[in-house]
Amino acid sequence: MDFEEILIRSLDSIKPSRVKEAMEYSLMAGGKRIRPNLLYDVLKGYGVDTSLGDHFACSIELIHTYSLIHDDLPAMDNDDLRRGKLTCHKQFDEATAILAGDGLLTHAFEYASLTKYDATVVLDCIRLLANMAGSSGMIYGQCLDIDGNCTETNVDDLNNIELYKTGCLLTIPLMIGAKLSGKSNDVVEQFKKIGNKIGYAFQIQDDILDATMTQQQLGKTNSDERNQKLTSISLYGLDKAICIMNDTYDECFELIDELQGFNTCYIKDRLLQIKARSN
Amino acid sequence: MDFEEILIRSLDSIKPSRVKEAMEYSLMAGGKRIRPNLLYDVLKGYGVDTSLGDHFACSIELIHTYSLIHDDLPAMDNDDLRRGKLTCHKQFDEATAILAGDGLLTHAFEYASLTKYDATVVLDCIRLLANMAGSSGMIYGQCLDIDGNCTETNVDDLNNIELYKTGCLLTIPLMIGAKLSGKSNDVVEQFKKIGNKIGYAFQIQDDILDATMTQQQLGKTNSDERNQKLTSISLYGLDKAICIMNDTYDECFELIDELQGFNTCYIKDRLLQIKARSN
Repeated sequence: MDFEEILIRSLDSIKPSRVKEAMEYSLMAGGKRIRPNLLYDVLKGYGVDTSLGDHFACSIELIHTYSLIHDDLPAMDNDDLRRGKLTCHKQFDEATAILAGDGLLTHAFEYASLTKYDATVVLDCIRLLANMAGSSGMIYGQCLDIDGNCTETNVDDLNNIELYKTGCLLTIPLMIGAKLSGKSNDVVEQFKKIGNKIGYAFQIQDDILDATMTQQQLGKTNSDERNQKLTSISLYGLDKAICIMNDTYDECFELIDELQGFNTCYIKDRLLQIKARSN
Repeated sequence: MDFEEILIRSLDSIKPSRVKEAMEYSLMAGGKRIRPNLLYDVLKGYGVDTSLGDHFACSIELIHTYSLIHDDLPAMDNDDLRRGKLTCHKQFDEATAILAGDGLLTHAFEYASLTKYDATVVLDCIRLLANMAGSSGMIYGQCLDIDGNCTETNVDDLNNIELYKTGCLLTIPLMIGAKLSGKSNDVVEQFKKIGNKIGYAFQIQDDILDATMTQQQLGKTNSDERNQKLTSISLYGLDKAICIMNDTYDECFELIDELQGFNTCYIKDRLLQIKARSN
């Protein structure tokens, strides 16, 4: 079964409703599945059966999707398009989009809890996932981001927004991949460092793409520019932002090479793919 | 430590931010703590140390609070007052209220995972909690509720809304209380039946209070009437609704009396208190 099928089946147990339709609509709206793939890359690198990661891979994608739905709402970024399709509140309505986001977030934890593995480790992974997705993680970044609608240029603020808003959810699949591979906390911490770098590079790349591609190429409107948000382009200018992005991807590769007994080819191929993306 | 202190301390680990302020504001806005108390009543009835239930008691109250914040949003019930205070989006702003709800929901799972007890049981309780709070549980009820803005009178629809929207979150503390007391699935199922009855009686009582008390006595506006929602009053009329409520509370007591080796005084006292509430 390919991941798209695993993912849509993760909603099978949910009662049919308009909210479920909205959950499915946004979940299957053509995401690149970067976060689940990062989890699988770690398992493959350690020679672990990837099906062990299915539940958490889906959970992380459910959380990613909920965060996009709520982020697109009129009270937040007010975006009409996402991946070339209408955003959830435009396709359905605001109330349904709020509930669909809540439903995806809640289901993520139910689905993760079904992982067939040592209960102590699964519980630990759930705690980590909630921590990285919560108000000391991704939501903290979103909070900094909505506070940051200003023209001031502050490197620390921007780094923090990127670290939390984007970095946390790119880091957690690596950490959970390491945990499910039975690795020690030291290794999990090394993956946390790698994930933080990926998040930083990824967010700068997003800003570069927003600044250089058309709305049609991106499949979304550039709400950051409209909302006058602090971005790496407004802070560094385009040329310097590209340099920082390239350097940061290089640093990721160096950190990956430090890992012992880990086949690095899967995750490195993934990073090259991510670096080459155009939307 | 009393429960109010346990509850506010459950947010200690969260990074300071405007979203955290909003989470604290709504969490400490004078809730009656009915759901945590129901969990403690089950533990006390089985002679189990109540501190074992602290994490889940907080988690359930965090989820209850998030559901109220999102329910009050302009796109949902559009309420300005809750428990006599400004609703979260009125006190802060809509974006902050959306994130505060998301933050409370996510933190509920992190905090629940810290329960010091057999990991398999804790994991099982997390799965149950997510199921009852999710799109086959409470959120399913909310979905039926926003679809139900009509003048049609359908007993099945109304029963379903009450069962899911209100019943699930009153049932889950009883089920988790039974699980943490080491009880079998049969006993957990009996508590589910009791919880469903409590939810049904509770929701009818809410409708009766909405119809008979002033906004000042309730500490909230009557958005159901404004939004022309299907309620037990619009369906049965006031007198019959009162009869049904009384009968349903009686049925709760009968189901409770069927439990073996359980000191029923704590939960019965609680139900008498709930039945006597005026807001």
